[in-house]
Amino acid sequence: MANEALDLDRLSLNQMTTRNLSVREVADLCLRHKIKNIGLWREPVSKTGIRETARIMRDTGLHVSSLCRGGFFTAASEADRAERMDDNFRAVEEAAQLGADTLVLVCGGTLDRDLQKARRIVCEAVHKLSDFAKDNGVRLGVEPLHPMYTATRSVVVTLAQALLVVANLPPRLAGVVIDVYHVWWDPDLYAGIENARGRIFGFHICDWLDPMPDFVNGRGMMGDGYANIRRIRQAIDASGYSGPIEVEIFNQKIWEMEPNETIKLIKERWRDNV
Amino acid sequence: MANEALDLDRLSLNQMTTRNLSVREVADLCLRHKIKNIGLWREPVSKTGIRETARIMRDTGLHVSSLCRGGFFTAASEADRAERMDDNFRAVEEAAQLGADTLVLVCGGTLDRDLQKARRIVCEAVHKLSDFAKDNGVRLGVEPLHPMYTATRSVVVTLAQALLVVANLPPRLAGVVIDVYHVWWDPDLYAGIENARGRIFGFHICDWLDPMPDFVNGRGMMGDGYANIRRIRQAIDASGYSGPIEVEIFNQKIWEMEPNETIKLIKERWRDNV
Repeated sequence: MANEALDLDRLSLNQMTTRNLSVREVADLCLRHKIKNIGLWREPVSKTGIRETARIMRDTGLHVSSLCRGGFFTAASEADRAERMDDNFRAVEEAAQLGADTLVLVCGGTLDRDLQKARRIVCEAVHKLSDFAKDNGVRLGVEPLHPMYTATRSVVVTLAQALLVVANLPPRLAGVVIDVYHVWWDPDLYAGIENARGRIFGFHICDWLDPMPDFVNGRGMMGDGYANIRRIRQAIDASGYSGPIEVEIFNQKIWEMEPNETIKLIKERWRDNV
Repeated sequence: MANEALDLDRLSLNQMTTRNLSVREVADLCLRHKIKNIGLWREPVSKTGIRETARIMRDTGLHVSSLCRGGFFTAASEADRAERMDDNFRAVEEAAQLGADTLVLVCGGTLDRDLQKARRIVCEAVHKLSDFAKDNGVRLGVEPLHPMYTATRSVVVTLAQALLVVANLPPRLAGVVIDVYHVWWDPDLYAGIENARGRIFGFHICDWLDPMPDFVNGRGMMGDGYANIRRIRQAIDASGYSGPIEVEIFNQKIWEMEPNETIKLIKERWRDNV
């Protein structure tokens, strides 16, 4: 593969890739390895505390490329959906406090075997949330998930569909987050990337393994699998995206690695595969 | 769910659902339960022998709704691809000998991380195979597989894409096989079904489980999962398909059931979910 020099300044470490570390530890890891961006998750952030996390981000000068995650809009009852919406309001506030580029939305699974209904609920919820996000200066990034997660995680499963969800919202406010793992298979991917111009709020990478070690935590290190990460990255760049590229890998074996070794491996694979 | 009377004459037992049985045993099982159609697989058929299997089909009067499977066109070298093509010629001959409605094609996974190349190879191969199939009076049914099988099983992952593969071939000769498991998640499914009018050569059913007990053998009995089988079946019927509906379930627990019990359960679930 061509050895194209992709600026390491674009590298972002999603904290799930080193999930055993606290926010403080992962921030120190980034500093030690001159990584300038970080992707945060709400659960570990809440353990450290939102104010303490924000302070760590300011102290270290780390740029928060995304906060994962809002969404899961498709609860069964009106009451449950209202509760989910409240949680999303809190997620927006947290993203604002952390100065995150984008709040990532994983929209929620199917409902009563009615995909169409679930998809309508998602559209309505994202629109409702967008007013609140606007007031808080937070961008919403709808992340299409792999179709194998349709049942319980996201009825939004293609980039084209994610773009439809945000189509009627201002491009500066609502866009998409593209994760190689979720979209690499899509025959319409490159058309989708071109159509996403100006709406790409985040780009996540890892690789697709087969056989898959685990249905949820079976993602691979870049270069270990089947996805053409570089081609997708080049298409995304060509579509005008020049922001951080988050390495987000859910994989037990990678979680068991010594974190400094994980970063060395990421940088090596970045050079050859991203 | 509405209790609509769907004719049991349309029920077909794909032999993988009772995979521990020989061709003779599964044929007897069908007779005993007045099932008129059967879906065969090449591996168990080759154990019984193709002539003996054909004889059993004639003796029992069973209608062979499909033979699984040809395909896997995307081998790495020209030589390997030629070998695969030879195997597909044999599959066509076997389908002809068995009087199968359709030879099901599972087209093969990605190649050198180049999905576009793999998809080109698939198109060329199906076109090449179609001449031979025509001469043998066999129909080819391209089956889109779930996107989670893109890496090693099928780069054809949506109904729309399967229709493109066969678009330039005569509608009586080349079509698609639709399996609920592979397509239920697709936002464009119902448009695809409408576009497939006259090209639907087979319809397979089971359910989508989450969590999934196994990546390959994790399919569910109708009614146990998330797919809206009835809605999909009604759309397929509305698109002019009135042929057999194959129950094809890969699942260790179902394989461990007593086969007569499996059939009873299938008929019960057919009434309520298909």
